Amino acid sequence: MAIVVQKFGGSSVANPDRIKRVAKRVVETKEAGNDVVVVVSALGDTTDELIELARQISERPPRREMDMLLATGEQVSIALLAMAIHELGVPVISLTGAQGGIITDDSHTKAKILRVNPERIKTELAAGKVVIVAGFQGITSTQDITTLGRGGSDTTAVALAAALKADICEIFTDVDGVYTADPRVVPEARKLLDVSYGEMLEMASLGAVVLQPRSVEFASQYGVVVHVRSSFNHSEGTIVREERVLEKDMVVVGVAHDVNVAKVTIVNVPDRPGVAYRIFSKLAEDLINVDMIVQTTTQRNTADLIFTVSRDDLARAREIVEEVSKALGADKVIVDDDVAKVSIVGAGMVSNPGVAAKMFEALATNNINIMVISTSEIKVSCLVQASDVLKAVRVIHDAFGLAKVEQGVGNEASS
Amino acid sequence: MAIVVQKFGGSSVANPDRIKRVAKRVVETKEAGNDVVVVVSALGDTTDELIELARQISERPPRREMDMLLATGEQVSIALLAMAIHELGVPVISLTGAQGGIITDDSHTKAKILRVNPERIKTELAAGKVVIVAGFQGITSTQDITTLGRGGSDTTAVALAAALKADICEIFTDVDGVYTADPRVVPEARKLLDVSYGEMLEMASLGAVVLQPRSVEFASQYGVVVHVRSSFNHSEGTIVREERVLEKDMVVVGVAHDVNVAKVTIVNVPDRPGVAYRIFSKLAEDLINVDMIVQTTTQRNTADLIFTVSRDDLARAREIVEEVSKALGADKVIVDDDVAKVSIVGAGMVSNPGVAAKMFEALATNNINIMVISTSEIKVSCLVQASDVLKAVRVIHDAFGLAKVEQGVGNEASS
Repeated sequence: MAIVVQKFGGSSVANPDRIKRVAKRVVETKEAGNDVVVVVSALGDTTDELIELARQISERPPRREMDMLLATGEQVSIALLAMAIHELGVPVISLTGAQGGIITDDSHTKAKILRVNPERIKTELAAGKVVIVAGFQGITSTQDITTLGRGGSDTTAVALAAALKADICEIFTDVDGVYTADPRVVPEARKLLDVSYGEMLEMASLGAVVLQPRSVEFASQYGVVVHVRSSFNHSEGTIVREERVLEKDMVVVGVAHDVNVAKVTIVNVPDRPGVAYRIFSKLAEDLINVDMIVQTTTQRNTADLIFTVSRDDLARAREIVEEVSKALGADKVIVDDDVAKVSIVGAGMVSNPGVAAKMFEALATNNINIMVISTSEIKVSCLVQASDVLKAVRVIHDAFGLAKVEQGVGNEASS
Repeated sequence: MAIVVQKFGGSSVANPDRIKRVAKRVVETKEAGNDVVVVVSALGDTTDELIELARQISERPPRREMDMLLATGEQVSIALLAMAIHELGVPVISLTGAQGGIITDDSHTKAKILRVNPERIKTELAAGKVVIVAGFQGITSTQDITTLGRGGSDTTAVALAAALKADICEIFTDVDGVYTADPRVVPEARKLLDVSYGEMLEMASLGAVVLQPRSVEFASQYGVVVHVRSSFNHSEGTIVREERVLEKDMVVVGVAHDVNVAKVTIVNVPDRPGVAYRIFSKLAEDLINVDMIVQTTTQRNTADLIFTVSRDDLARAREIVEEVSKALGADKVIVDDDVAKVSIVGAGMVSNPGVAAKMFEALATNNINIMVISTSEIKVSCLVQASDVLKAVRVIHDAFGLAKVEQGVGNEASS
């Protein structure tokens, strides 16, 4: 008997009718002879509504209490989905993150899963039940409720799949797989049948929001095979797994973009050792993720330091950076949230010189100015004006011929 | 340092402004030098809204999943109240029923508290924090979430007060104490300064809904002194404690009424041993509380069996009773929810003959028909037409002269 973990996001369970539809899909999988563990997010916009409620009480609520509040969203979902599955005559039980054995550290609102104790889940599966586990939440060793941050339900699903040695982790979403670019931006974008963990990780981190980056890391670490597919139809989606082909024909598998980006510039920081450390350790303490970092040295022993954060974190990042900058004697801090990031991703890129140049050329000939560049072995990212980003995605997608059907992994014609 | 347990109901925390007001009241008590434990219910109509959501999915949702769903209501309240108290600069922590050590049996939706493990609460109090505990909920020894049934937050508060050996348990409500009758029905009703557990228990069971009956039992069992008072002002309310006066001048302390009553009549049940047992044990299995029970023997070896249940339980009670009646060979089952109960309560009643007769006289001279009578040592209840009940309360209140200021316990003029 195969073990299948299925994850459904908030839009899939936004109202009673959708919950009933998810219940049917789960029951189909169970009746096909599988042990099924289901992970769900909070109903529709519940999380945002709870955050708004908290804001009416406090501008900066304690993170622990924020988690206490937000964790209720998924608890409502699991109870309602359990009722809907019970209504179809199938034995079922819902479990909170704590009951499901999701043990995390105590970084409230952005907690990391330390381990999973799947004993209760195994017992309930052995009793023939569908087991529903609340996504996005866990518990510390001192029994305090935590949440995993935005998109944390993906991570819950993958972590459970790893702990249960599940045969597959199905992530149901409102798109039917991973595309060479966002199909709403590039209508001729193709669905990828197969991507590697590394590629998926870069795509996810860079704005292709079908999977939460941490969940991909987790999947990679434990070899969990992830199937990203649509909750609206039964067609095959995209399989994310270890790379199986040594040489790839496709150098670039996709173009990702991200508009949830803001740029912070610290002007004239003294150019001496320890400066970057002081700034970025302060941001890390407040759990603010920094993405692209660029430093340019100027004439008189000072440097300009530029980095990006998500727009949600901009207000807090600015506060922290202004304080540290003053202490360091920097001239000033400039923030700009009218920017966006466009990236190309592909595991074959590292051995193919000229890939980055081709991207820059596509942008240049289309008059799109590049503010910041950042590269890794399998991706190149450029920060551009927010108003340029959709055009940038299209011209790069076109320059690499991603719409064409070619041979190789990540290609619908292959298999 | 005194330990004070304060309980605030759903209407006291219905919106962010009211939550902030409750926070101020809690902080006042803390700053007066007390250790404060706060118990809160779900915001306003949250519980009813969650029940409606469940109904859209299933007519008869599994009770365990209902508890999983309903427990979120109080979890939202405790988090928001903690944020509001934190905003006032006072150290605070919120705890779910499970974290607060409220251990219950597994009678989901109507669970009973088995014991309280107050270790976490004591640790947090010792650290100088205000501790907020979710009312209405607990956890079984197998870590399943339970709820205590309607009004369960009162029971949570009293159970915590008992476990912590609190000096007082303050129950804040939208009325400013316990009255000789519902002031909305009898404008000249008087506030009682002091009532005994027994009297309060009868008053509460009989429809004076200021306190949940089980919480009074609990208070009586552990000697917890309860102060019922208004959340809108600082005036003294009613103290509920062990009776301190041996002889009372006031025979009847109050008139209670309850409209959440329905009558079930089983016509022509065979008059043989074991019949009542079979019917009432079936109802008990389904956790349906039966109140007044009357049996009248007819001519030909059959009896009519009449009892009352709360209107919420009527549909389920009818289903069960019809099944058992058929098996027993009874003629038919008649249900009537157009009834209400009026009662007089007073510890002095047992030694004062003629009290019940005075009540019946008041009803008779006002043309109010009595359907069923039930008595205990300290109360007499009559079932009447629903349309008669408010008039019944007024004429009985008047017949016993409860509006007059007299000597004795349960009297504003005393002290």
